[in-house]
Order: sequence, then C-alpha cells, then structure tokens
Amino acid sequence: MIISVIGSSSAKPEHAALAEEVGRELARRGIMVACGGMTGVMEAACRGAKEEGGTTIGILPGRRGTAYNSHVDIPIFTTLGYARNIIVVHSGEACIAIGGAFGTLSEIAYALDAKIPVVGLNSWPLTIKGDGDPIVDGVIPAADPADAVEKAVAAAGAAAQN
Amino acid sequence: MIISVIGSSSAKPEHAALAEEVGRELARRGIMVACGGMTGVMEAACRGAKEEGGTTIGILPGRRGTAYNSHVDIPIFTTLGYARNIIVVHSGEACIAIGGAFGTLSEIAYALDAKIPVVGLNSWPLTIKGDGDPIVDGVIPAADPADAVEKAVAAAGAAAQN
Amino acid sequence: MIISVIGSSSAKPEHAALAEEVGRELARRGIMVACGGMTGVMEAACRGAKEEGGTTIGILPGRRGTAYNSHVDIPIFTTLGYARNIIVVHSGEACIAIGGAFGTLSEIAYALDAKIPVVGLNSWPLTIKGDGDPIVDGVIPAADPADAVEKAVAAAGAAAQN
Amino acid sequence: MIISVIGSSSAKPEHAALAEEVGRELARRGIMVACGGMTGVMEAACRGAKEEGGTTIGILPGRRGTAYNSHVDIPIFTTLGYARNIIVVHSGEACIAIGGAFGTLSEIAYALDAKIPVVGLNSWPLTIKGDGDPIVDGVIPAADPADAVEKAVAAAGAAAQN
Repeated sequence: MIISVIGSSSAKPEHAALAEEVGRELARRGIMVACGGMTGVMEAACRGAKEEGGTTIGILPGRRGTAYNSHVDIPIFTTLGYARNIIVVHSGEACIAIGGAFGTLSEIAYALDAKIPVVGLNSWPLTIKGDGDPIVDGVIPAADPADAVEKAVAAAGAAAQN
Repeated sequence: MIISVIGSSSAKPEHAALAEEVGRELARRGIMVACGGMTGVMEAACRGAKEEGGTTIGILPGRRGTAYNSHVDIPIFTTLGYARNIIVVHSGEACIAIGGAFGTLSEIAYALDAKIPVVGLNSWPLTIKGDGDPIVDGVIPAADPADAVEKAVAAAGAAAQN
Repeated sequence: MIISVIGSSSAKPEHAALAEEVGRELARRGIMVACGGMTGVMEAACRGAKEEGGTTIGILPGRRGTAYNSHVDIPIFTTLGYARNIIVVHSGEACIAIGGAFGTLSEIAYALDAKIPVVGLNSWPLTIKGDGDPIVDGVIPAADPADAVEKAVAAAGAAAQN
Repeated sequence: MIISVIGSSSAKPEHAALAEEVGRELARRGIMVACGGMTGVMEAACRGAKEEGGTTIGILPGRRGTAYNSHVDIPIFTTLGYARNIIVVHSGEACIAIGGAFGTLSEIAYALDAKIPVVGLNSWPLTIKGDGDPIVDGVIPAADPADAVEKAVAAAGAAAQN
C-alpha cells in the first residue's frame, strides 16, 4: 500500500513534527510513503518513515540531477514543476494533508475530484463548495498522526471497494 | 490581453448565465478569453465572447481529434487530462472563477500560488489557509460580471507591475 | 487552421532562414503558426509570420512571467518544461520540422505516433523503425519553404478526412 | 539504482523475450526496473524482474484505478497519457530501449536530450541528426540482454560523474 503525504515545503515546526510522526506510523504498518520529495512536510514525512525502516517515494518537480530530500528512496523525476502535484495524489490510495498553503490546496482539490480520500491534520477547513453547496465528501479531520493514518487506511479500503 | 475563465463543466444555470455575460464583457473590451474549452462555464464564457466578436482559446484536456465546445477559436490540445488545469490559469493575466467544484478549486489554488489574481463570482469562499493563517491574498469577490471583469483587469495590471 | 513549426532553439543560420520563410508563407495563406515560443527556429518562424501579418501562438515551457520571443502573439504558459513538446505538435493540424536536435525528434515522434502529418525541411532522416520495419508513414520531405507549406496543408486536409 | 526499460506496448515475440531477460538480469544485480507499466516490452521486463525477485516501478499513463500490468510493484498514476514518457526516462539512471515504435522514439529523444544514456537492443538506428550532423552521442548498441545491462550500468556510472 502507498499513502501520499502532502503539505508545505516551508512547514511550521509543529507541522513538521506531525509529518515526521505520520511517516513513522505509516512505516510501522508497512505502508510506503509517497510525497513531493522536497523540503518541509515532505522531508519530515520521509525522515520519519526511514526512522522506522519504511520505503519512501519522491514525485519530484525537477529533471534528473536536480536536488531532493535525502530521505527519498525512489526518486521519480517528473520534470513538470508544480504540475506534478496531480501525480502525487493519484499515486496514493489515500492522502494525508498536514497544514499546507496553496500548493497543498491544489493537491487536496485534485484528490477530492478523483474521489481519493484525504485526511487532514490542521489542514484546509473546506466547508462550502464554489457552487455554494456544503461539502459532504471533503477532507476527513484527524486528531493526531496515529488517528490520521488509521483513518487514511480505512478510507483507502472503502474507496477500493467502490 | 488574455483573461482565463474557470468553472465547472456541469454548471448551474445561474453560473452559466454569469459566465456568458463575463465572456461578452471581456470581448467588448478586446480581451481574449482562455478557458478549459469544454462544457458548462467554459462553453458559456466562449459563447458570450463570440456573441461580441471576441477571440477564445481552449486549453483542452484531450488529444488532437477529441471534442470541445464549438465556440473555441484556438484549440490547444494538451493531451494531459485534468493536469492541464495549471496551464489554463498561467495563460491568463488574471482568472475569473464562477461557481466551481474541485477542479476549479485546483485552478484557484494554482493561480494563487503563482500570484496570478483570481476574481470570484459565487465561487470558493476561502478564508483560512491550511496552516491556520487567514488568507489575505485570496479570491477577490465581485458583485456581478461587469464588476468581475473590471476587477480582473485592474488586478492583472497591478500584478504585471510587480 | 493552425500549423506547428518545430526545430532547434539554437538554429543554424540556414535553418533560421528556412523557418522565417515558412512563417511568411503560412501567414500569407492565413494559417496561424504554433511553436514552442522560444529562440532559434521558433523565433524565426514567428518573425516571418508577423512580417506578413500572421498570428503566432507560443506553447511555452515556463511559468507566467518567464521570457519568450517577442514575435509571439498568444503566449500559453504551460509550466511543464520540455514535457510541453507533445502539446506543440497536437495543437497543429500538421507540423513542419526544420533541422532540429533531440528535442525536435521527440516532437516528430509524438506527431507520427498520433498520425499528425510531419513535413521535414533538412530534418531527421528516419527510415527504419526501432522494430526493424521500414517507416512508410514517416516525415514527408519538402524541397523548400513553399513546398513544405503546400505539403503540410495537403497532409492536414487528408488527415482530417480520416 | 533504477534503470528504465522502454519499448512498444505491442512487442514482437523476440523483443518481449529480450525484455524479459533484461528484467531478470537487472533484478539479479539488485537494480530496480522502471517502465511505462503497460503491456508488451514493459510487461515482459517487469515479469522478468519479478522472476528474479526484483522491484518494478510503473510510470503509468492513467488515473488511479486504471489498469496496468500485474508485475508492477509500485504504480505511479501520472494521469498524463503519453506525456508521461519524459518521466519514464528521467526516472532511470540509464535507459534500455528494446525495439520500439514512435512512442519509444519520443523516449529515446528525451533521454538523449537530457544526456541520460540509452542502450539499444534492436532499437532505433539513429545515425544523422535533424541538422545533418552525425550523432556521436546516440544510442549505445548492445549484443544481448546481459551486454545491454552491463553497458547501461557502466554508462549510468559515467553519467553520474559528469
């Protein structure tokens, strides 16, 4: 199983701490971590996963030879810049969003559009759609990293059955 | 000048009416309309622009030979599916968002991330970021189509000076 | 009608001269020129088209705000780097390849794969496929710019009927 | 180390046999196989790699939920269609091309453009560039699968030192 972790490249310390623990918890369960492969939340999630012996996939913005965080096991050089965001979310059976600015919002939007579950830790509080309807199938809130992983695994299982 | 119009492919009638009038108003001012080239808000904006003799650009998801709305003058076949959303927003000096579901949200997110101004007509009411900070540089609300075009032109001019 | 002109960003002078005349000839016939929007063959084709009052579309590698040649009327900022090559070829009803290095070869390959006609002026002499079969549906050779445009228009017409 | 294997989705039997043995040989050396994840040469390379206990990465054209070959361990759903070809080649430290039609040619072109080494088994016999110059840095010919892997590993090492 692969779960994607999404969040800002310039994470606040509390978000980086959450990401690192999410990475650890995913690795403990034998789940691979996919992410954008760069700094901030991405790096913290990879570092956590490696601390527990997990496997990490970096869906990178750059070309072969460009830099990425040192905790990525499998670098995928997309060459696409931020357009690679859609690949990050489609490559996970579910996504865990931690904090995040507009780049993360593009990922949450792509995930929800494709009915890929998104679990949020202190992330975007979307409640009303652009057409004015309430969002009933939006980001699933989580209380802490263990809860986020638990809910992501459950939601991925439910999505796979649809 | 090119301004992008974004919104759902299955627009509510009131949103299609807003989009058509936005298209008319852009054409009256000699501004080209870029959009995703498909149905709903996209088609309505193109139809309006053509009613006033404007020029329309469709940044299409499909390959050469795939269908698009009949009011597109210049079809750009990206072959990328929804990953073409980032191209729609970067190709406008500003964006006007009308209603919209998750695909539109991905476009708003990409625009704001790139500091491309977004004016909203009944669109996503974003107020708090994923990191918990208030959004101070978010979607600019507009009262009606003429106001939306006026604000988009002004914001594009301000963005070009930065 | 849109026809794409492809070739190197660092063109030899004789290839730039061919591209400029191709641009002129396309414009004289009222055909829009699409290209990658940058330097070399792309710039020469756009310059020629503008000399004859034509319209030029640049399918650019960069983000909004990045540089492109000054003869592009309609800049499409793809943000995708060289991955935008497939968009350049799909956006033309036919392609005219002038000289060219490996980037141009990627475009010819994408065009032929999609059965978009390619006319070549001093371009890649492909004769045998990777599976050892002779190429019977490959690059159509042209003698000079007028011949290239004539053959591209004819091939585009034939392709549209299939 | 990751090496990409490229070739047609509708491979001739002799090319599929070569691809399967290339996959086996890569796995015996502990090298991960990246490919487009679909049928033909891609499937054969993955099957070979799994026979020897290797790890396979499929850089897929489709969205989450679309089909891919059953020997892929790590599916990356790019959503990009054939535009994903550039990702396949950038994700390998070197590429091994086996037979191949125009899609494979687009990959070889992207690899050579990025100075990623390409080793060919019965693949595109490129000798003259589009600008008429001889190709001195083109596809490296190999005699058989073991030779192809040997040369790909050596070329990847040399490329990494530049």
